[in-house]
Amino acid sequence: MRILGIDPGSRYLGFGVVDAIGPVVRHVAHGVVRSDGKLPLHERLADIFAELEVIVGRFAPQAVAVEGVFHHKNARSALVLGHARGVALLVAARAGLPVSEYAPARIKKSVGAGGNDGKGAVARMVATILPLPPEAGKVRADAYDALAVALCHAHQCRGGVHSSAGPRRSADGFRDRLKPAYVAGAPR
Amino acid sequence: MRILGIDPGSRYLGFGVVDAIGPVVRHVAHGVVRSDGKLPLHERLADIFAELEVIVGRFAPQAVAVEGVFHHKNARSALVLGHARGVALLVAARAGLPVSEYAPARIKKSVGAGGNDGKGAVARMVATILPLPPEAGKVRADAYDALAVALCHAHQCRGGVHSSAGPRRSADGFRDRLKPAYVAGAPR
Repeated sequence: MRILGIDPGSRYLGFGVVDAIGPVVRHVAHGVVRSDGKLPLHERLADIFAELEVIVGRFAPQAVAVEGVFHHKNARSALVLGHARGVALLVAARAGLPVSEYAPARIKKSVGAGGNDGKGAVARMVATILPLPPEAGKVRADAYDALAVALCHAHQCRGGVHSSAGPRRSADGFRDRLKPAYVAGAPR
Repeated sequence: MRILGIDPGSRYLGFGVVDAIGPVVRHVAHGVVRSDGKLPLHERLADIFAELEVIVGRFAPQAVAVEGVFHHKNARSALVLGHARGVALLVAARAGLPVSEYAPARIKKSVGAGGNDGKGAVARMVATILPLPPEAGKVRADAYDALAVALCHAHQCRGGVHSSAGPRRSADGFRDRLKPAYVAGAPR
């Protein structure tokens, strides 16, 4: 099963695609949808929508996993986050994809990071679990967070991810008109 | 200028359409997009998106006005509200429409309601300013709030709305497949 994990944000929206085959999870792609902070919010949302539709069309996931709604400390930042999250959920719904939500603590736990570990820890653990192409390190932490959500869903569906496999693949350098910065595994 | 006012919500999204012609503002339509609370959020958002696209297509507004991002008391409800608001802004952006945001206090003031007055007061003031069809009273307060946002934008664009005009029109009973409950003025 191909899973698209999304870490929503109105400036940087992380995404990560994995294939879960039995207990094995393979990296397919990960990256960040960047939107221009100088644009008004509604135009940024239109860019995110268009970009996510391209990603769903390109990678054809069978399920979407997103960090669940949790108690945000700041109501204003929660409201702004909600805008990008709403657009991400909309893209999934329009593609007819099931959406699963996971609590942040559960996502961290599923990749073996501790509850108090920062973003760097998640990225390190994701890189340990999934063989990533060499270019992977150049991508923002949001993309690793998205991979972690996808891994969490794979873990949930399979009753535990015990290992990962697959040789390192070079990125194919896919770039589209909406300037995403991401790293995709070679086609399989 | 035709203005679409939106009062976002994931269960009930109010909308109101007015025509601002010089200092005169005429009611065109108002109503509520209802989504099924039993559906998961992403499917509700897809319904709201589809319904708002129908409304934009039908009424062909030239501008969209929305209540601005404000300091919500509850972060969780702000996050959920953000989802519906993001979808509303997305529809405006995809239609190439300019979006204006107004603070709640300014919206109330523009229809002559006091800062501490409840939703009922806004509905009463809107009904005083705009001649509404007889069926108007059956619609949820969210629709009046949306008309108030549209009036606020008309007020802003024209440097003050001094009066409204036009005879009462009967509703045309327009209903589409997505079961909106709204009241539209007769075609002009």
